[in-house]
Amino acid sequence: MSEPSENPTYKFYYFNFRGLGEPIRLLLAYGGIEYEDVRIPKEEWPEHKPTMPLHQMPVLEIDESRVYQHVSILRYLGKKVGLSGESDWENLQIDMVADIMNEFRLKLVGVYQETDEEIKAKKLEDIKNETIPLYLGKLDGMVEENNGYLVAGKLTWVDVYLAGISDLWKLLAGYDVAADYSNLQNAIENVNSIETIKNWIENRPETEF
Amino acid sequence: MSEPSENPTYKFYYFNFRGLGEPIRLLLAYGGIEYEDVRIPKEEWPEHKPTMPLHQMPVLEIDESRVYQHVSILRYLGKKVGLSGESDWENLQIDMVADIMNEFRLKLVGVYQETDEEIKAKKLEDIKNETIPLYLGKLDGMVEENNGYLVAGKLTWVDVYLAGISDLWKLLAGYDVAADYSNLQNAIENVNSIETIKNWIENRPETEF
Repeated sequence: MSEPSENPTYKFYYFNFRGLGEPIRLLLAYGGIEYEDVRIPKEEWPEHKPTMPLHQMPVLEIDESRVYQHVSILRYLGKKVGLSGESDWENLQIDMVADIMNEFRLKLVGVYQETDEEIKAKKLEDIKNETIPLYLGKLDGMVEENNGYLVAGKLTWVDVYLAGISDLWKLLAGYDVAADYSNLQNAIENVNSIETIKNWIENRPETEF
Repeated sequence: MSEPSENPTYKFYYFNFRGLGEPIRLLLAYGGIEYEDVRIPKEEWPEHKPTMPLHQMPVLEIDESRVYQHVSILRYLGKKVGLSGESDWENLQIDMVADIMNEFRLKLVGVYQETDEEIKAKKLEDIKNETIPLYLGKLDGMVEENNGYLVAGKLTWVDVYLAGISDLWKLLAGYDVAADYSNLQNAIENVNSIETIKNWIENRPETEF
């Protein structure tokens, strides 16, 4: 993959859906990075699928190169827009939180994709009683200790990840799993009230999730 | 979490098993970093579990701080031992490959944990026909283009990740899924033949996986 030019063009491919794509869109909005927001209609996905790396989206096209894996993209753009940590140690904390959030999402996906109704109900119980208190309790405690942010007492790209991904948690679990975690709500609000991001949210295409 | 001292002490917690822990052990060996290799016996895990962050291992204790999430640890140590990329762009490629490998592993876990034998057989078929060719084909092609390494034509921490994790793929799938991918075998061999790593492999505790 060829390294991008100094002022690359950006083209973002995802569904017409917030989902895994929205944290990236929020970060692009934060950084004032212009891009083409390509939204593939669900019914056209089968024809696009084989053209995407690993047959998946989100994909960010930077000049001619297509990059993927949403957390990797967030880390890269986060550095570009000045939202990385100031030391290797801070970056380790940021990366850990990103991995925790991804792991949490995948546990919700495990419930969401279960087709056996009985097993699904059982899995949802476990999620409610164990996974959610463990993971969201952990993240909530971090925000409490970090001045309304997840890491290092200040805004980093992982806060933007949280604000962008929390809608997907609702879809996957079937209810607002983070509603009772006041510090997490606080952290999300701290991101969503940033002028550039607020502006994006007010003007973005309306979608259910 | 407090930032480590200049010459921190390292203590590594995992099972007596290569699994998710081995890529980290290989990287520590590569860097000549001394550490205490704590191996929790399976039968003692229930008492240790609540003491571990997010009730999971591997955990690396750096001075007094316990860090977790194996890919985050690998990225942090990788930088410490000089195996990061030389630019943000190279680091993006490295991170993408790490995320691809983690995603691949989790797909294998989905089969491994399936308890319904009929569904398990079906899932294993899909893995064989779709997931393995797609993911390992992709990684194999990268090594082919990169001089025996995954990214940037040289050794980085993600090659060490590959060499350390490939045993776990075998366990999860029930057979050596990477056996027919000659470039991947090459990349693994390029890591395993590094003197410090070779020495670790020859002297490490013997375990089945």
